Amino acid sequence: MTWCDFQQRFQKVRDNKLFEMFVITVIVFSSLMIGVRTYDLNPWFESSLYFLDYAVTIFFLVEIMIRMAAEDRFRDFFKKGWNVFDFTIVVISLIPLESSEYALIARMLRLFRVMRLISFIPELRVLVTALITAMPRMGYVALLMFIIFYLYAVIGNLLFAHINPVLWGDLGISLLTLFRVATFEDWTDVMYETMAVYSLSWIYYITFIFFSAFVFLNMMIGIVVDVLADEHKKMEAEKMGLTLEEHESFEKRMQDEVQSLHAKIDQLVAMQSEKK
Amino acid sequence: MTWCDFQQRFQKVRDNKLFEMFVITVIVFSSLMIGVRTYDLNPWFESSLYFLDYAVTIFFLVEIMIRMAAEDRFRDFFKKGWNVFDFTIVVISLIPLESSEYALIARMLRLFRVMRLISFIPELRVLVTALITAMPRMGYVALLMFIIFYLYAVIGNLLFAHINPVLWGDLGISLLTLFRVATFEDWTDVMYETMAVYSLSWIYYITFIFFSAFVFLNMMIGIVVDVLADEHKKMEAEKMGLTLEEHESFEKRMQDEVQSLHAKIDQLVAMQSEKK
Amino acid sequence: MTWCDFQQRFQKVRDNKLFEMFVITVIVFSSLMIGVRTYDLNPWFESSLYFLDYAVTIFFLVEIMIRMAAEDRFRDFFKKGWNVFDFTIVVISLIPLESSEYALIARMLRLFRVMRLISFIPELRVLVTALITAMPRMGYVALLMFIIFYLYAVIGNLLFAHINPVLWGDLGISLLTLFRVATFEDWTDVMYETMAVYSLSWIYYITFIFFSAFVFLNMMIGIVVDVLADEHKKMEAEKMGLTLEEHESFEKRMQDEVQSLHAKIDQLVAMQSEKK
Amino acid sequence: MTWCDFQQRFQKVRDNKLFEMFVITVIVFSSLMIGVRTYDLNPWFESSLYFLDYAVTIFFLVEIMIRMAAEDRFRDFFKKGWNVFDFTIVVISLIPLESSEYALIARMLRLFRVMRLISFIPELRVLVTALITAMPRMGYVALLMFIIFYLYAVIGNLLFAHINPVLWGDLGISLLTLFRVATFEDWTDVMYETMAVYSLSWIYYITFIFFSAFVFLNMMIGIVVDVLADEHKKMEAEKMGLTLEEHESFEKRMQDEVQSLHAKIDQLVAMQSEKK
Repeated sequence: MTWCDFQQRFQKVRDNKLFEMFVITVIVFSSLMIGVRTYDLNPWFESSLYFLDYAVTIFFLVEIMIRMAAEDRFRDFFKKGWNVFDFTIVVISLIPLESSEYALIARMLRLFRVMRLISFIPELRVLVTALITAMPRMGYVALLMFIIFYLYAVIGNLLFAHINPVLWGDLGISLLTLFRVATFEDWTDVMYETMAVYSLSWIYYITFIFFSAFVFLNMMIGIVVDVLADEHKKMEAEKMGLTLEEHESFEKRMQDEVQSLHAKIDQLVAMQSEKK
Repeated sequence: MTWCDFQQRFQKVRDNKLFEMFVITVIVFSSLMIGVRTYDLNPWFESSLYFLDYAVTIFFLVEIMIRMAAEDRFRDFFKKGWNVFDFTIVVISLIPLESSEYALIARMLRLFRVMRLISFIPELRVLVTALITAMPRMGYVALLMFIIFYLYAVIGNLLFAHINPVLWGDLGISLLTLFRVATFEDWTDVMYETMAVYSLSWIYYITFIFFSAFVFLNMMIGIVVDVLADEHKKMEAEKMGLTLEEHESFEKRMQDEVQSLHAKIDQLVAMQSEKK
Repeated sequence: MTWCDFQQRFQKVRDNKLFEMFVITVIVFSSLMIGVRTYDLNPWFESSLYFLDYAVTIFFLVEIMIRMAAEDRFRDFFKKGWNVFDFTIVVISLIPLESSEYALIARMLRLFRVMRLISFIPELRVLVTALITAMPRMGYVALLMFIIFYLYAVIGNLLFAHINPVLWGDLGISLLTLFRVATFEDWTDVMYETMAVYSLSWIYYITFIFFSAFVFLNMMIGIVVDVLADEHKKMEAEKMGLTLEEHESFEKRMQDEVQSLHAKIDQLVAMQSEKK
Repeated sequence: MTWCDFQQRFQKVRDNKLFEMFVITVIVFSSLMIGVRTYDLNPWFESSLYFLDYAVTIFFLVEIMIRMAAEDRFRDFFKKGWNVFDFTIVVISLIPLESSEYALIARMLRLFRVMRLISFIPELRVLVTALITAMPRMGYVALLMFIIFYLYAVIGNLLFAHINPVLWGDLGISLLTLFRVATFEDWTDVMYETMAVYSLSWIYYITFIFFSAFVFLNMMIGIVVDVLADEHKKMEAEKMGLTLEEHESFEKRMQDEVQSLHAKIDQLVAMQSEKK
């Protein structure tokens, strides 16, 4: 039995619907396991979870090796982004941090296995890809938003730092405070505090809320319009292709027929002239 | 008088506009009755409400029996989802829990009669059907959202459980706390508490808010675009049907006329050749 | 000088752009006057405002009488909704409540003169008309929303009234509490209080938030789609009208020309047959 | 070497991609410098920042003079709005307020250099231009919103000023309180306070929230629809231009051919008549 036979078997395993379902089940199960451990459990259950966790780690290792072996060429495996994503998650969860003082980090790393659900369910993969492609669309608006935040954060720090250093102490926490104001979270508490010193400081908050909300809303509207326009263009192109085809076939037929009419009449004219 | 005669009478009663209005009035009235009982009432009024409630229960029983009898075949009644809905509500409110310790549950069950308004007013029925059909559209986004919540809930539990077990004690209440953060409800209180211990924990909250808001917004935009594209497609199909019809009629006429021109010229040519 | 001459003069005054501007200025001025009185003023200024207010009241009376007299037939005046609106506001502000104990109500009634701005600025009139026509569109969704609120309010009252009667004491305040929850206003405070007694009561809040947000979002999306579809239909109709016209003119010309071709060929055929 | 040679050199410098990148880097760097100064720094670093700031000020002065000199005619420079914007920011930051008691204002003025990023990055410039052109669209809705706020603010002041003068003391702070209510920020605290005196005052808040939310939502929807309709119109015009062109070319060809058919048949008819 050659390597090629093995490869074909691995491919069969990999593409098997049942195997896929089983992997998804294991992913969900391993995620639940981590969730369950946040509750107080009896020691017996805890230790059995410990062993199950080992089993899952090994299963994932085997599964990813099957998928690697199933590739015609080994490096093809890493050409797909989602494979790299899967591989990284599996490898990271192999790091033996369990018994050390980094147990917390170990558990968090294994938690990222939940995200393998995304790479396994095609609909989620499409969704996440769409979300990632939607990001650059927001890039410049995010930059503009950041400039607004930056401006207001420095002004806030300069004006209000002496009133409440916990909220306006440096640029970082001023930015955090402004983010809080932008989410309307107890923003009046922040405002009333500074209004006690500078009674006109409401101008600062109201203009900030207006600017950030205005930019945000316009970004939203812009995205809706962009996405719709794209969709529309695609549909129009499709429709126009159809209409054009039809039109063309009609136009072609008409022209052919009119041309043949010409030919016949030319013939008639020729016959008449001849007779003369 | 045969059963068939009865049936026809029942059908007349059921389809009578006045009867329908009366049923709606009784539904509204019985709902108001339950609402009124939340206020302090004098004993006489309370007991009269008690009897009215009985009357309503019996009326609903009679009404649903009329509608059942009006069907040509008894089991047709249960083929419509809304009938099953109505039947369940009526039957449930018949359960004699009144005098027992389950009085509270009895009142709640009778409360569900309000929902019969939905099955009686066609516009509401359409609306609810539309809402239910809109749900699967959100399915995978909801799953993605849940993965984000799950990830952050476990991390939150691992990191912050020792700071405030009331908010991060186990997976369940961590999820609840995150839902609270997602609604911006006093989220800074939650954050400032953990920032006192881990000063970088704002990263956890800000990224969570960004991810959840980003996914949510994209879901919203996605739905708007989907619904619009559907609507658009329908309208285009309609319009194109119309335009095509018109086009076709014109094209047909033109071709017929041109063909008859051909025929006539062919005749001319034949006549000429003949003469020769 | 006849009545008719007066009428024409009044019409000239009414339609005069300057007069209109002056009325708007008086409206804005009278609104500002009421706003200014919310501040502490020196007595001299206060009493002068008092007299100015009289002057404004009389001016408005004269102005509306001019507009009434300018109508060809007196009752035509009341045929326009906005005239009735203006008339009501002017008449109401005439009620002599000033020196009585109803001074507060008198000031409030005169405040409604601000709304005359809406009837005077055409763009605002269009906007308000659009808003009023948009209302029925929301009718059934509002009813559905109310059913959800009603259901949850009664359940909330039944379950939580004994925990906090200030929030759940009767149907009315339960509805108010739910509105508060729907606006995310300190909703967790309400929830944590009831969770202390019924630890599963988070289900009540989460489902309520989901249902109300879901219905609300779908209503929003529905309206956007409706409005867009209307707009689209109008534009399509317009466009198709244009295209059809053009098409028709082309089709008409083509058919005329082809018909005249037929006629000529018929003539040819006739000539040929004749010769024979 | 003439002035013209200098000018061409300046133009080369100005249009140089590297120079542009360098200016952007300096802008970002100078903005960061102001941000860094909000943190506690050691004196040496502080004083070096002080000198760097001078350097940046001089660099900006040189840079703007290069761009001025690069213009063919000096006053052309001020014809572009963004140049005026840049010039104002640079000139303002030259004002020597450093060592005086206006140091705070000096730092704020230099902060506005961040905004030069907007005038330097074309995508941001487009974005800001779009935002500014979107503003008038909101003008009348903003006016309507203000009328609602004004009405409710005066009523709130008249009714509630004696309950809590901090929130309803005069028109200004009543408007601020209403803005707070409109952002749902602890609005129930405001309401419960007045409900303790006037138990029906919830009507005031609920109607205000409904009106303002209703107008706001309709404005949003209106803008989305407007922007989409514009986009649509543009696309349609484009498409129709294409289709029309095509149509016209087809129609032209057909008419030409049919006309030439007419000519030939006329010739035939003439020949026949002649023979006769």
